[in-house]
Amino acid sequence: MAKTIYNTATSIDGFIADADNSLKWLFGVGGGHPEQEEAEEGPLGEFDEFMKGVGAICMGSTTYEWILDYEQLLEKPEKWPYEQPAWVFTHRDLPSVPGADIRFASGPVEAVHEAMAAAAGEKNRWIVGGGDLVGQFFDAGLLDEVVVSAAPVFLGGGAPLLPRQVLSDRLELLEARSAGQFAVLKYRVKPPGRSEG
Amino acid sequence: MAKTIYNTATSIDGFIADADNSLKWLFGVGGGHPEQEEAEEGPLGEFDEFMKGVGAICMGSTTYEWILDYEQLLEKPEKWPYEQPAWVFTHRDLPSVPGADIRFASGPVEAVHEAMAAAAGEKNRWIVGGGDLVGQFFDAGLLDEVVVSAAPVFLGGGAPLLPRQVLSDRLELLEARSAGQFAVLKYRVKPPGRSEG
Repeated sequence: MAKTIYNTATSIDGFIADADNSLKWLFGVGGGHPEQEEAEEGPLGEFDEFMKGVGAICMGSTTYEWILDYEQLLEKPEKWPYEQPAWVFTHRDLPSVPGADIRFASGPVEAVHEAMAAAAGEKNRWIVGGGDLVGQFFDAGLLDEVVVSAAPVFLGGGAPLLPRQVLSDRLELLEARSAGQFAVLKYRVKPPGRSEG
Repeated sequence: MAKTIYNTATSIDGFIADADNSLKWLFGVGGGHPEQEEAEEGPLGEFDEFMKGVGAICMGSTTYEWILDYEQLLEKPEKWPYEQPAWVFTHRDLPSVPGADIRFASGPVEAVHEAMAAAAGEKNRWIVGGGDLVGQFFDAGLLDEVVVSAAPVFLGGGAPLLPRQVLSDRLELLEARSAGQFAVLKYRVKPPGRSEG
């Protein structure tokens, strides 16, 4: 059954970007960079597999602007990395990327989730980030799975992975293993109000 | 060779206690409570193994006061959980526990580390926490290993695991695996100023 999945890289201490909103700490980690030999055994090879199962994606405006900037997409729109329809949550007017299927949205996540599900069909919905947006999906009961790839890094501060209190009655560890220098942890989000399940 | 190890439970998002300085979120996690059947396969069984290799421990005052309070040690001093000599870093006058080998210390960690190493001999030194104290050991180049057992919990705030920026040139993932509902991640702290090693 198609799932809504938050799949992200993180530091060990739960930050998805550092205090300068940078990912410099993430790139160059063993197994994490495509030009490194071990990349196919690291999370990037796995990430390609994950992406094959994704039929729709969404992200917050900070994440979107980070990609725009990092890939210099306004000059090189062909570098937009996703084939799937992508929803971007924003209250501002943001530039689109020519040729990319980008849909700007605001307001509650429920309507976007419904549109994503219709677009993705039997494939999964991927929430790219950030943490606040994922929190809104969690609050709405629309988050099925969390997959984090923890880089061997402490940041001590930055953008939080998921700024919510989610206790063990709501999360089930499905898997924990290494992939290169990353620790990959996979959790199922359990529905509320059930002590077992 | 004897090592100085920070071994702790944490939330997925890197907090060792919640905003109320409580560990309620931690207890009762599958595999994490001694009265649960699977405890011996969880991190507690492993923790007993770890403790057999520990010859000296240290902790900050917040951690110490938490244990005092949680175990009601001033009424039940026999419940002090450690046989090893224990250093407690504090600038205040704190009560000791009758019959326990507790040594209060203040000032730089180097002198205490030396005393711990002398007491522990070929066994390891365990830094119980909190994060600030561990950070001081890291700053002084005296931290060899970090072992975190991540409970299936997001806290969204609380006492940080390690309030430092430690990048991947300083950390090597040795192991990532599940133990019951916990994800156990083990890192070697690499010496500074070497790109490989």
